[in-house]
Amino acid sequence: MDNTDVENRLEALEKRVGLLEDQLEIHRLINTWGPAVDSDNADAAAGIWAEDGVLLSELQDTQLNGPEAVALMVRDTGHQAVIRAGSAHIQSFPLVTVDGDTAKAVGYSRVYLHKDEGGHEVWRVSANRWDFRRTPEGWRVTRRVNQVIDGGARAREILNQAFE
Amino acid sequence: MDNTDVENRLEALEKRVGLLEDQLEIHRLINTWGPAVDSDNADAAAGIWAEDGVLLSELQDTQLNGPEAVALMVRDTGHQAVIRAGSAHIQSFPLVTVDGDTAKAVGYSRVYLHKDEGGHEVWRVSANRWDFRRTPEGWRVTRRVNQVIDGGARAREILNQAFE
Amino acid sequence: MDNTDVENRLEALEKRVGLLEDQLEIHRLINTWGPAVDSDNADAAAGIWAEDGVLLSELQDTQLNGPEAVALMVRDTGHQAVIRAGSAHIQSFPLVTVDGDTAKAVGYSRVYLHKDEGGHEVWRVSANRWDFRRTPEGWRVTRRVNQVIDGGARAREILNQAFE
Repeated sequence: MDNTDVENRLEALEKRVGLLEDQLEIHRLINTWGPAVDSDNADAAAGIWAEDGVLLSELQDTQLNGPEAVALMVRDTGHQAVIRAGSAHIQSFPLVTVDGDTAKAVGYSRVYLHKDEGGHEVWRVSANRWDFRRTPEGWRVTRRVNQVIDGGARAREILNQAFE
Repeated sequence: MDNTDVENRLEALEKRVGLLEDQLEIHRLINTWGPAVDSDNADAAAGIWAEDGVLLSELQDTQLNGPEAVALMVRDTGHQAVIRAGSAHIQSFPLVTVDGDTAKAVGYSRVYLHKDEGGHEVWRVSANRWDFRRTPEGWRVTRRVNQVIDGGARAREILNQAFE
Repeated sequence: MDNTDVENRLEALEKRVGLLEDQLEIHRLINTWGPAVDSDNADAAAGIWAEDGVLLSELQDTQLNGPEAVALMVRDTGHQAVIRAGSAHIQSFPLVTVDGDTAKAVGYSRVYLHKDEGGHEVWRVSANRWDFRRTPEGWRVTRRVNQVIDGGARAREILNQAFE
């Protein structure tokens, strides 16, 4: 085993481990959203977004631009009512694809709401496409598109982006 | 530190990283099923299966043999109606056990359906046992057994296979 | 490339791979709970706990101390009725933080129950804080606090512990 051989094997390992870490960090980022918005932590919800990050909710026809807009949404009357009812924003295990310093993920999200009479209802199940950029502070969301799965073609288009 | 020491540590690392990659790839394979069948992508749904792969749905008493049968199921009237209603096939984080070039996984799956009046119902929650084989093209599903959790013994038997 | 350089890179890799393995093992531990309690496997349910592990269910105001108490809970009439109805205890992807030989995780859990008329209801969605200790036999749960998400402040406090 000479020096070049050792160098090559170390390099290959560092690359493979880096890719595993990237994927895990992106899973973590996506799964930060729920605990942040459900616990009324506007800063944590804002913190996963890049400065130019965009959140597009197609059903509600809303677009939030940047972390500050996300923080305002969390503090808004509408979201506060959802929190006080008792909400759980839960993601599925998404299909993550890392390409150097950008990445995409496709998966499902669900919002469960507590019912007055006890138990929970499934308020929304949505298709999600996430995009990410590696920044000096770690991975950040640059774009999330969210469409309720209601039998229409749009949610299928989003899910199908996992395979493009 | 001599050459043997370096060789041993590199080998140990390569083995550990390989096992992490195997597990992540199997998680990915399982979570490909939902986006594939919900987006009407019969090829992607067929693509996770080995040529001799078998899908057994115990509740429906159906057995699909091989990727072509899976693709036909996706294109079938029954599944198309489910898609047009608005479906989400979502997996839990399964217990994966890799043993060389084969692996098994045990976990839950849920099918959510959009309701006409809005919101979603939990149509089915099932116990799943998956088996896999490493192929030159990556891991593939060789067998999936699926049983609705309805209080009967069969779903418990399947879940309990995680501990065998 | 001299010996010190190789040593440093091997050490760094071993540490990074160890952290990935720790996180995956903790995910696995958390996701063992469901298949264990839903399949009536009291030993598997007890096996994820440290000897001094504590399970606190705030809604029910119950506290279980140690693996034996967990095993008794699984065998108890109340849990047996839940199993016979058809139950699925499913975790979300939690936010895991490893700190040497201890770790914490924050996430959601859901209990789905089979309905007599078919389909499943979402019986409970809860906020969870888990704590872990590395033991000679692997990671074990030292504490789990569980609170139903019902709009009250307590569930939000638990979810917010992900960011502390």
